[in-house]
Amino acid sequence: MEDLMQKIVSFTKRRGFIFPSSEIYGGFGSCYDFGPLGVEMKNNIKRAWWKEMVEKREDVIGLDSSILMSPKVWEASGHLSAGFADELVECKKCHHRFRKDFIKDKCPDCGGEITKPRKFNLMMKTFVGPVEDETSATYLRPETCQGIYANFKNVLNSMRLKIPFGVAQIGKAFRNEITPKDFIYRTREFEQMEMQWFCNPKEADKFFDYWLDQRLNWYYGLGINKKNIKTYKVPRRELAHYAKKAVDILYNFPFGWKEIEGVHNRGDWDLSNHAKHSGADLKYEGYYPYIIETSAGADRSLFAFLVDAYQEVKGGRTQTTESVKEVETVLKISKSLAPVKAAVLPLVRNKPEIVEKAKKVFDMLKEYFMIQYDETGSIGRRYRRQDEIGTPFCITIDFDTLKDNTVTLRHRDTMKQERIKIDELASCLRKQL
Amino acid sequence: MEDLMQKIVSFTKRRGFIFPSSEIYGGFGSCYDFGPLGVEMKNNIKRAWWKEMVEKREDVIGLDSSILMSPKVWEASGHLSAGFADELVECKKCHHRFRKDFIKDKCPDCGGEITKPRKFNLMMKTFVGPVEDETSATYLRPETCQGIYANFKNVLNSMRLKIPFGVAQIGKAFRNEITPKDFIYRTREFEQMEMQWFCNPKEADKFFDYWLDQRLNWYYGLGINKKNIKTYKVPRRELAHYAKKAVDILYNFPFGWKEIEGVHNRGDWDLSNHAKHSGADLKYEGYYPYIIETSAGADRSLFAFLVDAYQEVKGGRTQTTESVKEVETVLKISKSLAPVKAAVLPLVRNKPEIVEKAKKVFDMLKEYFMIQYDETGSIGRRYRRQDEIGTPFCITIDFDTLKDNTVTLRHRDTMKQERIKIDELASCLRKQL
Repeated sequence: MEDLMQKIVSFTKRRGFIFPSSEIYGGFGSCYDFGPLGVEMKNNIKRAWWKEMVEKREDVIGLDSSILMSPKVWEASGHLSAGFADELVECKKCHHRFRKDFIKDKCPDCGGEITKPRKFNLMMKTFVGPVEDETSATYLRPETCQGIYANFKNVLNSMRLKIPFGVAQIGKAFRNEITPKDFIYRTREFEQMEMQWFCNPKEADKFFDYWLDQRLNWYYGLGINKKNIKTYKVPRRELAHYAKKAVDILYNFPFGWKEIEGVHNRGDWDLSNHAKHSGADLKYEGYYPYIIETSAGADRSLFAFLVDAYQEVKGGRTQTTESVKEVETVLKISKSLAPVKAAVLPLVRNKPEIVEKAKKVFDMLKEYFMIQYDETGSIGRRYRRQDEIGTPFCITIDFDTLKDNTVTLRHRDTMKQERIKIDELASCLRKQL
Repeated sequence: MEDLMQKIVSFTKRRGFIFPSSEIYGGFGSCYDFGPLGVEMKNNIKRAWWKEMVEKREDVIGLDSSILMSPKVWEASGHLSAGFADELVECKKCHHRFRKDFIKDKCPDCGGEITKPRKFNLMMKTFVGPVEDETSATYLRPETCQGIYANFKNVLNSMRLKIPFGVAQIGKAFRNEITPKDFIYRTREFEQMEMQWFCNPKEADKFFDYWLDQRLNWYYGLGINKKNIKTYKVPRRELAHYAKKAVDILYNFPFGWKEIEGVHNRGDWDLSNHAKHSGADLKYEGYYPYIIETSAGADRSLFAFLVDAYQEVKGGRTQTTESVKEVETVLKISKSLAPVKAAVLPLVRNKPEIVEKAKKVFDMLKEYFMIQYDETGSIGRRYRRQDEIGTPFCITIDFDTLKDNTVTLRHRDTMKQERIKIDELASCLRKQL
């Protein structure tokens, strides 16, 4: 499984999905950049989430709150107190620091003795305005949901909503992890897709089950292998300070079963505390609504979708002369998440009529889809290049095209090829995508 | 014009476009949140930009680099030196601080005497890892483009590109403005839409003109009034340290003509400096490519599109009994940017067959578009509510609908109404949107 992780890290860099941040300067603090294909895939994931959680529903609306907020928000939420802190230990010999629950008795770097743990707040501090001291300090948000709670009244007033309703948000959050690890799984900068559902306390249990079910179906609907997903009911003693109930959705990563999303019953903790600290009336018809939260990691789900779709075929699935000696990779990712939807390939590049025709097909399709044009290498090699990045369709322009205006449409998963008229290509792809 | 600003601020809050951040705690440092309609409109702007700049082109690819980067990036870019600093003055009496070029001789708050200016770096500092000192300090990126330069090699290698090509990115950036002002125009947290075009130095002038033209056409294509846009060629003495040439695209805001986008010829400043500081070879076929940059503000362009579309009609454009005394607002925004594409309105809500039919139409359309359902108030009031937020189409289900399965389709700008079959509604809207 170690091996699979290395393959994924190397594959994602080589094919433009994920690069280490500031790599020419030796990298930086577990930050990663999404490359040309990674950003497309991530955008597809975010759009699929937004479509399902906001656009298709009449009872959920969106929000995009700022990363910088008043430090009073973090007092009220409990993040400034000891609750939002990890236990930190230091090696007495090399002075490296570690998260206590991630290591044993001895320093993993030099084997030295380890200090007693002390609390370490996970929020990242910054200073707003020209004076750099505690009066101007605030924090990069460690979760997006507080921006939703702070806007509860604004949203109610402007959108004329009735409970139950939800507010959804996608955005960056930051946690000063002592020990970031597992590639893009545990990083200091990450992106969340969170929905907060405000409801009558009497209906909280019902909606908890409903939303857990909805969220599981979202992953299944995007083609994730059911056997790689399971749920974990968090026992009472492990619950966060605000939580009445929590179920984690776990994915079977190469480094173990890990949380990619949490569904939480936060009770009235958030609204009642913000009301207390701000003096604002955050009740709805005389009571504090309960909040059911679905909190997903955009990077973590991208990672899960990638691992889930990554397949290697020894001996070559296309069985061309070149390929039989090689291992072929195919990314069997859902069509809606695939970064490139189709590739346009002229069979040869030394025949101007074919190249010209291919360019025309490319120009026609790029109005509708994210597509690539590729004319270098044998056609078999080009198919494999597209299989590797999960492109669902390859369109080959060949000598027959010049005669009858048809092209070959090749399907990634079945490798089936069919002839199709150029005039029908756009609508045929639109139907299948 | 002051008055128009107040109207826009109040309108955007009342109708769910823009809320002050952390408002229940008295607001926070010029940060703003995008409400349910604001986030849809902003997403539409970002999608329109991405479609035009990335999807429709074969020579531009996307990227999404992290906000936190190595501080070495900011050494190389010149941001850590005095170049990226404002001149700060302090009032000797009340000790308030101001950006020097924004005030006269006396303190605007108390009339006190002002100190001599000193340099103040605009980057926002944070600390990465468990130790909070200068060795762990880094900065929130003040511009997104450096993430593109740092990935120049990764992008070249993974995407097999040839010069000229472009890399586009949308993302948050942060500047510790001393005097944030003008609503969402000058804020400490903002979002950029930047494209960096790498080309042969000999072709830089040609591409500069090409991209300036492209960018102007983007605004025009989204319906912005041509007379509210002009360009400003930055004189040599005002150029930033990295720039060989710069033209700003200005919009006619209520507070004056202000930059919403800059087109810059950055020469080989960025790649050669990153090569020097990092030791990486960032040449392409033996030379440093020149960079033409198009740098747009997502918040600023949203602001410009809002101001441009906002119209008040005294006496009422719909001429209903209720409206003739009022001022009616209509947001004549491009269909593609409108946050809500259509509203489904049952003529009355006490007739179950009509409500049921309306819900069916709503369920059918929500699969394709962002739509609203509204059954409260007179039909005239509901039309005006939708006009105010720029909804291009209203669909009314009335008594005739029950007989012939047609609805009234009302157009925002012309107020023209036509009968249309429910079966044809989705395809009719899709064609027009």
